[in-house]
Amino acid sequence: MDKGLQSALMSVVNDINSYIDNCEYFDKYSIKEISQGLRAYFSRGGKRIRPAIAMWSCGICGGDPKKVIPAASGLEACHTWTLIHDDIIDNDDTRRGGPSVHVIGKTQAEKSWGKKDSEKYGETYSILIGDMLQGISVSMILDSVKAGVDPKVAIEICKLLESDTALNLIEGELLDVQFEYMDIKSINPDLIYKMIWGKTGVLIKYAAVMGAMIGLNTIDMNNEKVKALGDFAINIGLAFQLRDDVLGLIADEKKLGKPVGSDIVEGKKTLTAFYALETFSESEKEEFLSIFGNPQKAGYTGRAVELIKQTGAIEKTSQKAENLTHEAIEKLSVFPDNEYKSYLSGLAEYMLMREK
Amino acid sequence: MDKGLQSALMSVVNDINSYIDNCEYFDKYSIKEISQGLRAYFSRGGKRIRPAIAMWSCGICGGDPKKVIPAASGLEACHTWTLIHDDIIDNDDTRRGGPSVHVIGKTQAEKSWGKKDSEKYGETYSILIGDMLQGISVSMILDSVKAGVDPKVAIEICKLLESDTALNLIEGELLDVQFEYMDIKSINPDLIYKMIWGKTGVLIKYAAVMGAMIGLNTIDMNNEKVKALGDFAINIGLAFQLRDDVLGLIADEKKLGKPVGSDIVEGKKTLTAFYALETFSESEKEEFLSIFGNPQKAGYTGRAVELIKQTGAIEKTSQKAENLTHEAIEKLSVFPDNEYKSYLSGLAEYMLMREK
Repeated sequence: MDKGLQSALMSVVNDINSYIDNCEYFDKYSIKEISQGLRAYFSRGGKRIRPAIAMWSCGICGGDPKKVIPAASGLEACHTWTLIHDDIIDNDDTRRGGPSVHVIGKTQAEKSWGKKDSEKYGETYSILIGDMLQGISVSMILDSVKAGVDPKVAIEICKLLESDTALNLIEGELLDVQFEYMDIKSINPDLIYKMIWGKTGVLIKYAAVMGAMIGLNTIDMNNEKVKALGDFAINIGLAFQLRDDVLGLIADEKKLGKPVGSDIVEGKKTLTAFYALETFSESEKEEFLSIFGNPQKAGYTGRAVELIKQTGAIEKTSQKAENLTHEAIEKLSVFPDNEYKSYLSGLAEYMLMREK
Repeated sequence: MDKGLQSALMSVVNDINSYIDNCEYFDKYSIKEISQGLRAYFSRGGKRIRPAIAMWSCGICGGDPKKVIPAASGLEACHTWTLIHDDIIDNDDTRRGGPSVHVIGKTQAEKSWGKKDSEKYGETYSILIGDMLQGISVSMILDSVKAGVDPKVAIEICKLLESDTALNLIEGELLDVQFEYMDIKSINPDLIYKMIWGKTGVLIKYAAVMGAMIGLNTIDMNNEKVKALGDFAINIGLAFQLRDDVLGLIADEKKLGKPVGSDIVEGKKTLTAFYALETFSESEKEEFLSIFGNPQKAGYTGRAVELIKQTGAIEKTSQKAENLTHEAIEKLSVFPDNEYKSYLSGLAEYMLMREK
């Protein structure tokens, strides 16, 4: 990542962290343990990519990116409450190098009342903390008016999140869960695309659209610039996910921070795996599916990756990600050159080239 | 309930049901099973007391109650998503005479994929349906602007719900759960009051305050009329809960629809039980606590009720509920006499006198 982009991103991180640190909604409870759960994931860092896209989308439209800080913080809070509930759903006990919120709740219960039913308490706690954070997220977005955003625009961006973006996101999560129950032969790339779109795409698109609406002071989602930034974000969101798939198969493990091939062991429904499935011979398909999602065959992960490689699915995925990124940057041509345009282009390229 | 009040309440029920029936946010999903969960509790009726308070509070302030329909529907949706999550937390498999949302999800999974892990799917489904409904609730409230509410007022009532009311409500739910883990001796009437306030009071107060703010077209929560209606609602909310406690101990079972004394078997922390606890001799306390919350001693529930009766706690509770209701009606004296004033007073009296 080049120095200019890096320092612009650092400045976003500082703006958002400082806003969240000082936000009144996190620390006003008579049950003191609530704040710990509400603040947990924020306090462990995070790249703040979505807030950056929102603030720079405002900037590229000629608006003051600082006006976006409350809404971008609310967007980050929205992302965070979905993670809290996902962690219950997926039984994930860690997040960003620390305990998940349901584990935090469980530990609180054990300290106060002992081990009996502490797991159930942890789950209850994290359902409720996620619910609270959704409310806080909405409030932050509406607090945009305090930063000078027109009330009508604030209402529109809040409704866009709550009646459209978040609903698509949750539907993506439900679809991902359904995949675990479905016969793998009934899953196809279209369904996977729909799931990825919900789980990764919609919130990145929202960041760009919301930033543009604030920057242009408009509630017209068909505005040419709003649409261009929305399309830009759709493309980089999908490219990001495709790059993720590829890294999961061929990355340098030390840089990636998780075992290469773990997506295979977990039976993660990636587009790459399904491109390969469409090309396999019957015997290759049989061999691959005997390894895919089968922890008892974790030793054969290398073989499964090899099978995918032979089909050219990795090159196909990488090429697709590259094309999407170029198309994304092309969408920005309606804007004059300025620092925000260079940040957004730089971010798109970074998301394509990253090695972790 | 007198005829005029009954027909006014029926008219609210029709307005709210019709708004929810036609609301676009419930039926736009590619996973068709989502709508079933979102609509389940609404379709089983409900008295719509909170929407009535909101609409009549607008009316008593001189506003058009119809303007409150979107926000009152959003308030009902807020109440409903909290019920969906509460039902997971409390392991309640039925609600309003039908299956809870987590049971609906479990049944869907069994139909599609068989019994394996269907319980986990049901829980996931109902966490996500509740989350979606919170988003829909926010969107409905912001849709107030389409009914002619000033955008600034719409923002303020939405923020009041999401950054204050809902957070208090959820904190009340968490406190109620914590009670199950706490030693009964560390629970006192102040804590119980706090829990009741969260679980019942805040949303009734919100209904009145929100309706008044729309009726008066103000964002000033210190406005004399807004405060009067807020105080009215605080009082009737508490009186409602106290009446509930009393009915749980001495009602006509056929009218009540659940066994008298079931609160004792479940160890429900009611103010009445704790008034009695403060009066018991040591031996009475010991006897009572051996029955309270102990399903194996369900046969002794009558004796526990007898012990409570002897202390006069039931009269004390009833008297308190009556005083609160009179004070509530007194708060309305700042308003001129009109139909909405008579509905609100009538509702307060009905909530005090009801037998189920």
